[in-house]
Amino acid sequence: MTDLWGGRFAEPLDEKMRRFSSSYAVDLRLAEYDLAGSKAHAHALHAAGVLDDAQLADLVSGLSQIAAEVQAGTFGPTNGADLPEDIHSAVEARLVELCGDTGKRLHAGRSRNDQVVTDVLLWLRDASLGIETSVRGLQRALVSLAERYQALVIPSYTHMQRAQPVSLGHQLMAHFEALERDVARLADARRRADRCPLGAGAGTGTTIPIDRRVTAARLGFSRVARNSVDAVADRDWAIEFVSACALIMTHLSRLAEELIIWSSEDFGTAHIGDAFCTGSSMMPQKRNPDAAELVRGKTARVIGSLNTLLVLLKGLPLGYNRDLQEDKEALFDAADTTNAALEIMASVLDSTEFRAPTTPGPDFMGATDLAEELVRR
Amino acid sequence: MTDLWGGRFAEPLDEKMRRFSSSYAVDLRLAEYDLAGSKAHAHALHAAGVLDDAQLADLVSGLSQIAAEVQAGTFGPTNGADLPEDIHSAVEARLVELCGDTGKRLHAGRSRNDQVVTDVLLWLRDASLGIETSVRGLQRALVSLAERYQALVIPSYTHMQRAQPVSLGHQLMAHFEALERDVARLADARRRADRCPLGAGAGTGTTIPIDRRVTAARLGFSRVARNSVDAVADRDWAIEFVSACALIMTHLSRLAEELIIWSSEDFGTAHIGDAFCTGSSMMPQKRNPDAAELVRGKTARVIGSLNTLLVLLKGLPLGYNRDLQEDKEALFDAADTTNAALEIMASVLDSTEFRAPTTPGPDFMGATDLAEELVRR
Amino acid sequence: MTDLWGGRFAEPLDEKMRRFSSSYAVDLRLAEYDLAGSKAHAHALHAAGVLDDAQLADLVSGLSQIAAEVQAGTFGPTNGADLPEDIHSAVEARLVELCGDTGKRLHAGRSRNDQVVTDVLLWLRDASLGIETSVRGLQRALVSLAERYQALVIPSYTHMQRAQPVSLGHQLMAHFEALERDVARLADARRRADRCPLGAGAGTGTTIPIDRRVTAARLGFSRVARNSVDAVADRDWAIEFVSACALIMTHLSRLAEELIIWSSEDFGTAHIGDAFCTGSSMMPQKRNPDAAELVRGKTARVIGSLNTLLVLLKGLPLGYNRDLQEDKEALFDAADTTNAALEIMASVLDSTEFRAPTTPGPDFMGATDLAEELVRR
Amino acid sequence: MTDLWGGRFAEPLDEKMRRFSSSYAVDLRLAEYDLAGSKAHAHALHAAGVLDDAQLADLVSGLSQIAAEVQAGTFGPTNGADLPEDIHSAVEARLVELCGDTGKRLHAGRSRNDQVVTDVLLWLRDASLGIETSVRGLQRALVSLAERYQALVIPSYTHMQRAQPVSLGHQLMAHFEALERDVARLADARRRADRCPLGAGAGTGTTIPIDRRVTAARLGFSRVARNSVDAVADRDWAIEFVSACALIMTHLSRLAEELIIWSSEDFGTAHIGDAFCTGSSMMPQKRNPDAAELVRGKTARVIGSLNTLLVLLKGLPLGYNRDLQEDKEALFDAADTTNAALEIMASVLDSTEFRAPTTPGPDFMGATDLAEELVRR
Repeated sequence: MTDLWGGRFAEPLDEKMRRFSSSYAVDLRLAEYDLAGSKAHAHALHAAGVLDDAQLADLVSGLSQIAAEVQAGTFGPTNGADLPEDIHSAVEARLVELCGDTGKRLHAGRSRNDQVVTDVLLWLRDASLGIETSVRGLQRALVSLAERYQALVIPSYTHMQRAQPVSLGHQLMAHFEALERDVARLADARRRADRCPLGAGAGTGTTIPIDRRVTAARLGFSRVARNSVDAVADRDWAIEFVSACALIMTHLSRLAEELIIWSSEDFGTAHIGDAFCTGSSMMPQKRNPDAAELVRGKTARVIGSLNTLLVLLKGLPLGYNRDLQEDKEALFDAADTTNAALEIMASVLDSTEFRAPTTPGPDFMGATDLAEELVRR
Repeated sequence: MTDLWGGRFAEPLDEKMRRFSSSYAVDLRLAEYDLAGSKAHAHALHAAGVLDDAQLADLVSGLSQIAAEVQAGTFGPTNGADLPEDIHSAVEARLVELCGDTGKRLHAGRSRNDQVVTDVLLWLRDASLGIETSVRGLQRALVSLAERYQALVIPSYTHMQRAQPVSLGHQLMAHFEALERDVARLADARRRADRCPLGAGAGTGTTIPIDRRVTAARLGFSRVARNSVDAVADRDWAIEFVSACALIMTHLSRLAEELIIWSSEDFGTAHIGDAFCTGSSMMPQKRNPDAAELVRGKTARVIGSLNTLLVLLKGLPLGYNRDLQEDKEALFDAADTTNAALEIMASVLDSTEFRAPTTPGPDFMGATDLAEELVRR
Repeated sequence: MTDLWGGRFAEPLDEKMRRFSSSYAVDLRLAEYDLAGSKAHAHALHAAGVLDDAQLADLVSGLSQIAAEVQAGTFGPTNGADLPEDIHSAVEARLVELCGDTGKRLHAGRSRNDQVVTDVLLWLRDASLGIETSVRGLQRALVSLAERYQALVIPSYTHMQRAQPVSLGHQLMAHFEALERDVARLADARRRADRCPLGAGAGTGTTIPIDRRVTAARLGFSRVARNSVDAVADRDWAIEFVSACALIMTHLSRLAEELIIWSSEDFGTAHIGDAFCTGSSMMPQKRNPDAAELVRGKTARVIGSLNTLLVLLKGLPLGYNRDLQEDKEALFDAADTTNAALEIMASVLDSTEFRAPTTPGPDFMGATDLAEELVRR
Repeated sequence: MTDLWGGRFAEPLDEKMRRFSSSYAVDLRLAEYDLAGSKAHAHALHAAGVLDDAQLADLVSGLSQIAAEVQAGTFGPTNGADLPEDIHSAVEARLVELCGDTGKRLHAGRSRNDQVVTDVLLWLRDASLGIETSVRGLQRALVSLAERYQALVIPSYTHMQRAQPVSLGHQLMAHFEALERDVARLADARRRADRCPLGAGAGTGTTIPIDRRVTAARLGFSRVARNSVDAVADRDWAIEFVSACALIMTHLSRLAEELIIWSSEDFGTAHIGDAFCTGSSMMPQKRNPDAAELVRGKTARVIGSLNTLLVLLKGLPLGYNRDLQEDKEALFDAADTTNAALEIMASVLDSTEFRAPTTPGPDFMGATDLAEELVRR
């Protein structure tokens, strides 16, 4: 019994367990970041005297070749090979194929724990900047419409009841303001996530004297993580980024709601372009604002992902726990969904025409003076 | 301007919009249910005199061929074809290839709205029964362990402090009870979802006198939907099923937590089999309970999916809204995750050995009498 | 050091900690159920020979007096007394004031753990039945309107675009169907929660031979809990009930959304009574559908409470953990909010007038035949 | 019929509706901010020539008296008066009692919509600063413990398995890092919320030429809101603040989990002070870490509140909707819960003693070199 309880592993991983636990399909998209991180770590090991010049050259060349394979779409486990546990072991296995035992030396001074966080942080920087670009695109679409419809007076609504008149341009610019805050939130989150975890190892650091500042700089980080336990256990960067995405989507859902309502025959004030609507063969008058409805629906999904991440982390003791592997799908899906929604909303707005309501309410027409004042605002 | 606002569609769907709005990749798994639903509808149209014998035979043969293609994995849009909007249009397009204009007649008396709900309800019945089977499997594993460890006395814990002694078998059977409720909840949800929506059309029914009871019976439904608007707008079946899944996962997360804690060297009372743990080359004493940690982590995901569905539905007016398309990923993922977690937990338990703690607390040993009484309970 | 680590408590509870940990303000509403549970337990102890006739009479009389004090609103900690930890200790303290040491004997064979669950289950039964009554009230309001407006033809909407005509009565009855499922869900949840936990003690039972079936019957439970660990650790009854509430609220939010949209000047098809709207002195044409908006808003709150409960339970090992104290506010708030929303929606509907839209869409008028057919459905 | 549909209000608010819709009990705590906002607005109206010197003096004196009443706890609707709709109308009613018609003039140039947002933003600034102070307090407790236990070597844990040795001080400082990010997030959120909405009116501004910059400065805002529609419809400040609270609580829940596990007899490495534990008369060895468990449990509640706010906002068209009233309970509860949890955790840490585990794992003792290196880190 002692043997059983204390001993080494006698059995291989169960096949069902391999499929249950593999994250390869999900984190395949981290390949390029994993390769960049490994290259930087190889240089650090070389500077620390762990790798000689030839070994460094070998590894760099091997990593570059894998990068080319990823680019070309030819990277992946060969037929019959076991499903890799994750992208990191798949890259490592290929590196050992290419460089032999030298490939295994990348292990020195690094653990899967700090490696994974490094990869995801590198991905996250790009993803966040990509979303910022898409927010800017949507803001441009809003400004362009606001300029075009500055003088179009529509009722503002409170309680979905017609209230005071407002310039449509002014109303649209309210969404611009919300997006402006979103950009600032993304930037704040990026700033906080801008620290390199390499060197934290499995959570308690490494005895190899790698120069963490050099590695960080090579990967474009401004700082190194201050605490090794925090470096591998922290997922704030995921939660803060997905919070920002959830708020962007909430903003889009409100814009979408307005477009949907305004596109109804009853309101009749917005006309979304054909390319973003669907119709009905049986009811040819219909112009279904599908894009806006999908954006509104997909908001639920990003709110769900934020919730998932908070629930995932709640009550986890520090240090790496395998639960943390589950952070990636929520993170990736939130980024993809938010970016796609921003892009489609910009296109939808570009395609949309507006007009004043054809059925004005009782005192709506008398308020032009106020409206004019508002337009000038 | 009149033309623009009232008129027909002049432009095709934007390419970015096609990708944004297609659910084909997600709902591909509905193919067999879509084919079964279409076959049943073809019979209904035949009985109503809308299809003659030859047309019916033609359609049934076409649908059977598509089913064979799906089975064989050869079904799918051919090279260069547009990404289909969803599985339903992909099936329809193939049917028209096979049966010509007759293929288009399946449209009669049916809308995408009632068709989609029918397909998903058919899938849901199978998914729910599959999960019930997996719950039963886990219960069997618990009973088997409980019998084996009926006489093993461990401390029960409250506040994670050792409290009164308890038979390990009794403690494990507490999880059995929770799963027993889960089975009942799944069955209740299936019963409530057991009504056929075909005939509801786009939400207001159809003028073709199809016999809804016959269609329902052919598809294994006990009842027909009573209200056509409700039949297409309702998503209770998704929410109730995913609620049941979220509760199952919550139960599994509690069992997982116990396994994780008991597997620590400090508690030292559980030893999960090699095939479900990972180790560490640097720290050979470690037996990481990965499977249990992943189950605990994936619980967050199913809670997130339940949240997504409630958020999706909240505030949607009745009738079909395109937002509803987003119900499928949350639903499918909850079913897949829950089923996989149940299966892996049964295997984990089958592989696990238990023993009494080697470091008993102050008054733990004196309580044997009570423990014996509990074992008999 | 040994003393410190193993020893008894030398210090009293910190005053800040007392305020942080007290649930008295929240669970005050459990008083009557706590008293009923204690009375039943006193009888059980008497039957088991732990209390003699005089002691039983003493306790029953003391509990009855406290019940009268609760009823009269005079129950509560007297001036200067410490804030009680919870309602259970407040009741117990008062009982000891009234009955002396006999009051303390109620401890025998019972723990705070099984006591709390018993109290809440008793409350839950009443709360669930109360909500069922309110659902029935709303259904009556819907049926009454549906009868009145059976022949009023309005456009049905999909994608918030006018689709086929529909009888308003038929549209309203779609909400009736959803509520019918809600009633069934409440009943299923009540049935599953119908088992008495008394006797489970702190989680491992009691050595006092109380007859659990008699206690259960006295309190109106049909069954006793089968597993003592499950009896105190399980919170399925809270989650399942709040799930049912969240679904009810989601249904109400969809009805509310329709009322809000229909009440707009643009749709102009619903007119909610003065007593449930607010207006604006500056904009006298406005009739803000406040009640419906609040119901829609409060839906978010109940969805949030369901989420809270799932997050609370996820990953908790079995046995009592103090986290579980936090179940009550989410549970009580969900019940109160749902009940109030149901009642107000019934009143809102009773006050509402409907008419056909004054600005019909292009082909809306031609579809009368279909509409007539639908009305007959 | 025309009369009914278009006309003025004939009926008063339904009594049940008054209770359902009143937020008075919840927003009573805004009284002092409402008074400050009103005072600033009175000055703005005076500067714009709407109030003369005497009227201004009258209002300022009235508002000061109400502030004194609030301070003294004597403010509130007198016996028999209707339940006020909210704190704003209660203040206004009292002001009219004190100043007569002059009291009503505060309406000019202001709407309930911009008034409410102003009040809550003023409250939020204080609440956020208060939480920042509490975070700093907890950080101080961590630093103090870290200094004391810098040289105490414990196992770090990954997968709840003993991994490499670590200085307890280093492990505790990981929590410090997380809190450091929390402070930054609170500050970022405050900066973004630092803009005065007064002047936005009901959403389209006011024609009275009030100088918004002066009002903003008087209330301590750095900027004025740029868009009037956004100023009243935006709730980003609530969501971003509650996001920061949810992340703080998630951090606390992880620290709490460690304290709970370490306090078990099995781990035996932490000993929380008597004043923050509960015990058991039946099991005197128990030291239940109640405070930590409650913090872990209350985390669920704040995650629930964040979810509530996102769900509340999702899909709401711009402009004021009554749903927004529901933002306050989630916001206030998140602030209160987070602040209390921070304070209690600081006290818990101050009371806690640590020691190395008495049952070291197989290779734990050999790793002293590494541990020493880590302590120096």
